[in-house]
Amino acid sequence: MSDNIIENLTDHLAKFPGVGRKTAKRLAYYIVDLSDEEASGLIDAIKLAKSGVTKCKICGNYSEKEICDICASEYRDCSKLMVVQNPKDVDSFEKSKVYDGKYFVLDEEEINPLKGIGAKEIGLDRLEQLLNENYEIKEVILALNGNVMSSQTGLLIKAAAKKSGKEVTRISQGIPSGGVLEYFDTDTIRAAFLDRKEF
Amino acid sequence: MSDNIIENLTDHLAKFPGVGRKTAKRLAYYIVDLSDEEASGLIDAIKLAKSGVTKCKICGNYSEKEICDICASEYRDCSKLMVVQNPKDVDSFEKSKVYDGKYFVLDEEEINPLKGIGAKEIGLDRLEQLLNENYEIKEVILALNGNVMSSQTGLLIKAAAKKSGKEVTRISQGIPSGGVLEYFDTDTIRAAFLDRKEF
Repeated sequence: MSDNIIENLTDHLAKFPGVGRKTAKRLAYYIVDLSDEEASGLIDAIKLAKSGVTKCKICGNYSEKEICDICASEYRDCSKLMVVQNPKDVDSFEKSKVYDGKYFVLDEEEINPLKGIGAKEIGLDRLEQLLNENYEIKEVILALNGNVMSSQTGLLIKAAAKKSGKEVTRISQGIPSGGVLEYFDTDTIRAAFLDRKEF
Repeated sequence: MSDNIIENLTDHLAKFPGVGRKTAKRLAYYIVDLSDEEASGLIDAIKLAKSGVTKCKICGNYSEKEICDICASEYRDCSKLMVVQNPKDVDSFEKSKVYDGKYFVLDEEEINPLKGIGAKEIGLDRLEQLLNENYEIKEVILALNGNVMSSQTGLLIKAAAKKSGKEVTRISQGIPSGGVLEYFDTDTIRAAFLDRKEF
């Protein structure tokens, strides 16, 4: 095949997370088939996402302003600070409507000594500064993934938060809603047992 | 959430085939995270795909030239013409290296009376003209999907090809390589039986 233009576009699309070469090719054909109007709309949306989105100076979440709406809001509970690993997690909690406090988004998802990602790289300095300066924060809630490196990251954050005299909690581990026990691994089963609650 | 820029980009990405809203959001975050260089590369690739790709005047496949490399090639077997439903199918056969003839890509994947897609819309006129003008073509190979509307489309093409005095064949139906019998529906099982071959 000499369709280098389509191959070139496929190369770019294949770098998308969760998109394999085959899917990328399908997306490339989809883009070729777009009307001119739809294509410019897509290009403009990409350009805008690159130029118009910045990180909130307080929480580190993506925002179109220097201070994001959640950090600027007077209606959020300032005594709670939830630490999450990426902006998508903020989205998830906002959608769940279960949480009304503030957030802190780590700069990197987790520490990784092999990749040179340590306390500084995940933004611990920034978090420590916020905890030390903001006396309103009483509870630091760790909402981290269940893998080993995330747990290690959690331990670092816990130490820092304790030093600032804050209470530290973590979201519970267990079987997902609707989950069937037999499909889960030993670690999940163990965590679900250890995090058990009165019924 | 007030991140309208990310929502806007997500809207565009959610229109991609096989991409749901959740995946689109993940892709949007990926794009926001791209380096400026990677982002311009992506945008240029999309622009080029829209401006630099046309349809081959003979076979209807996507091409960067008026006549695609396969149609222009002297090394392909001109006695065979494979009719496929879209450019991806050409890709699949080219990758398989099992076929060395020429192709014909339908304008629409299949007839659909409810959507007003008939013989004209799928490009039957164009195919008939090619078959009538090109005496080298001896065999028309139908490589169509296994659904009902594709079969109906195949019947239309078969009639046209027969009228031009061409032999008409179709690719065989059956169990995919590595497929486990119990997972397939009655139609597949029936087709696999009827298309059986000496072993």
